[in-house]
Amino acid sequence: MVSTSGAQLLPGDAVRNLRDLLLPMTSLLTPNLPEATLLLRDADIQYKSPSGLEDLKTLAKLVHGLGPKAVLLKGGHMPLTKEYVKSNSDEEKSITVDVLYDGNDYTIIESQYLTSKNTHGTGCSLASAIASNLALQKSKSQPVDLATAVRLAVRYVSAGILTAHASLGKGSGPINHFHSMQNLPFSPGNFIEYLLSHPAVAPVWRKYTHHDFATQMARGTLSEDLFKNYLIQDYLYLTHFARTHALAAYKSKTMDAITASATIILHIEHEMELHLSYCREFGISKADIESPSRKESLACVAYSRYVLDVGQSEDWLALQMALAPCLLGYGETAQRLYREKESVTTEQGNRYWRWVENYVADDYQEAVRVGSALIEKNILKQSPNRIEELVRIFVRATEMEVRFWDFDAHLEL
Amino acid sequence: MVSTSGAQLLPGDAVRNLRDLLLPMTSLLTPNLPEATLLLRDADIQYKSPSGLEDLKTLAKLVHGLGPKAVLLKGGHMPLTKEYVKSNSDEEKSITVDVLYDGNDYTIIESQYLTSKNTHGTGCSLASAIASNLALQKSKSQPVDLATAVRLAVRYVSAGILTAHASLGKGSGPINHFHSMQNLPFSPGNFIEYLLSHPAVAPVWRKYTHHDFATQMARGTLSEDLFKNYLIQDYLYLTHFARTHALAAYKSKTMDAITASATIILHIEHEMELHLSYCREFGISKADIESPSRKESLACVAYSRYVLDVGQSEDWLALQMALAPCLLGYGETAQRLYREKESVTTEQGNRYWRWVENYVADDYQEAVRVGSALIEKNILKQSPNRIEELVRIFVRATEMEVRFWDFDAHLEL
Repeated sequence: MVSTSGAQLLPGDAVRNLRDLLLPMTSLLTPNLPEATLLLRDADIQYKSPSGLEDLKTLAKLVHGLGPKAVLLKGGHMPLTKEYVKSNSDEEKSITVDVLYDGNDYTIIESQYLTSKNTHGTGCSLASAIASNLALQKSKSQPVDLATAVRLAVRYVSAGILTAHASLGKGSGPINHFHSMQNLPFSPGNFIEYLLSHPAVAPVWRKYTHHDFATQMARGTLSEDLFKNYLIQDYLYLTHFARTHALAAYKSKTMDAITASATIILHIEHEMELHLSYCREFGISKADIESPSRKESLACVAYSRYVLDVGQSEDWLALQMALAPCLLGYGETAQRLYREKESVTTEQGNRYWRWVENYVADDYQEAVRVGSALIEKNILKQSPNRIEELVRIFVRATEMEVRFWDFDAHLEL
Repeated sequence: MVSTSGAQLLPGDAVRNLRDLLLPMTSLLTPNLPEATLLLRDADIQYKSPSGLEDLKTLAKLVHGLGPKAVLLKGGHMPLTKEYVKSNSDEEKSITVDVLYDGNDYTIIESQYLTSKNTHGTGCSLASAIASNLALQKSKSQPVDLATAVRLAVRYVSAGILTAHASLGKGSGPINHFHSMQNLPFSPGNFIEYLLSHPAVAPVWRKYTHHDFATQMARGTLSEDLFKNYLIQDYLYLTHFARTHALAAYKSKTMDAITASATIILHIEHEMELHLSYCREFGISKADIESPSRKESLACVAYSRYVLDVGQSEDWLALQMALAPCLLGYGETAQRLYREKESVTTEQGNRYWRWVENYVADDYQEAVRVGSALIEKNILKQSPNRIEELVRIFVRATEMEVRFWDFDAHLEL
């Protein structure tokens, strides 16, 4: 009838029809102050020009008498002081109050007074939001609760004003209807594809999965010293890797998840046995590797303690994301090398070839599938913001993997 | 031109116009197999009926010759085996392949073969999703990457088929376009209002903030023994409360957040001084409270260790949510009691009144405001799913607060 900006939208003679024909069918009428007084004048009902909250309540009750089942009198045109009286100056304007009256009870919804040019369509948005909230209550089989539907809608519109884009168009601008909507940047089941092609991930992922260290292992050209150092440091790393999975078990909520972590620890122990058998071939004993005088390299300390700290200071999924580069990358790297025609097998004289075979083996590739599915499932419960944080953790751990394979990684401290 | 279901949508004589007038202006043409062959026939171009991936690539190149800058040949009409040849039986159908050809490079997008009646509008959705992805790249000032835009769009449509609501309407059903959209159940800045009126929170929150123990303190009717027990147990609780804030500091990412936690610990120490001064009035010394033989009650152990475990096994915000019932509830309860006409002040002879005064004091109410603002800010970064998990933590901690005030809470073990 009358817009927020003051324009009378309904011809005078239509007001009577609205009053006579529509109001008796109305569940909730949401007039602003000019609309409420126009309706009362048209119906020849006396009212006092409002000067505070009590007058607003009286007005709402008078409008309710015109037929609607409930009235929400919107007080945006009359900012109040903190004492709920009409402000006489801009400085006094502190709150606005909307009054809901359902024939029995009043609900007073107080909002912070806002000044903004982005108020175009606030009235329509409020009415639509109330109707949507009522539909939402029904769809959830909740009891219909008009006061809650209205309060949430008032908050929705206020937030829409507060978060509006100031620079859109000219004159009265639109509110932001999308302030509480989040969109995942990938489709369900395709997070890892998104992750590995993410601009922050792709370059470092390629560096890692195409690292010259692994390529030289597959071709048998790696120096024995470098391989030995790597084996020892990886063995020390795996000890902390196992501790990290124990921490993941502590952070789990179900026995299934706890058991999964324990099973992984047993797999790690198996992987370490393999390291020991390699080491024996190269003349290094278990006692030698585990000797207290054996120092972890900087690359080993940095990577293992980084992952442990993510585990301690973040949640379960963050921990899984810090562990993921190792799981996914070893699988992908080994598969690449297994197919490469330049690779040299054990039969062809490559003493390192078992490393490739270990990570293309069915049990390891199955572990990759299980771990990937777990991440795909849990990532859907995260917010877009959290997903970018998790991507950054993945990047950091991948950088540590690259460093672990760098040829100068495990020099003596 | 030809719908997924096989209907020819474009009259024969319009095909020539499309070919002559539109294709030369086209950035990306996205024909399915029947459309691609119809176009080629209309242009009198010879082609081999496809029987595998290589034939699809040839077809895409032939269609590209008709003028569009790039062609995405959609292979959904010809499911392939794992060996990329046309399947001869339903059992063999394993994948579908879409072929993108831009005049230089082929991009092959492989998808799991799906059977579903929810395929209505898949072609339109795919083309719209590709266009949207290209616009999104532009809006982020990323280089235009057609292959990525297409791959993400293919995943988008596949996920829309997989997550479609099977029961909507009759015949070919719609895909689910909203699979990656999340809506927060409250508007920015209004989470705590949403939280406290949440169906899982409201009843226990009322039980806590209207607990008879606090009411009896405000009226001076509480037995001295109960008050003394409460003071001692609350003192012991606050020790762990301080440890929890130290844990929050460990989990913080910025010096500001670490300092904020340390400041709270100093406030807790101040609060404990108050407890000690009370205790002296009631004839209990600090040594007595801190004596190793002094046992924490079950209610104290349960509450403090619950909060600590949330802190250890979850993230920083979860920890804040476990701490929030104490912060918010003491403030709200004390304010309620401060205003109640039945309350009895110190001057009127209530020895417990200082408890109420302590939590309505400006410094405590300021702490409530700061803590609330911190939660409001961080909650916006969470997913709807995570928010419900955080609500459950808040409920559990509130239940522990209720238990802490129950009259039988601190009986000797």
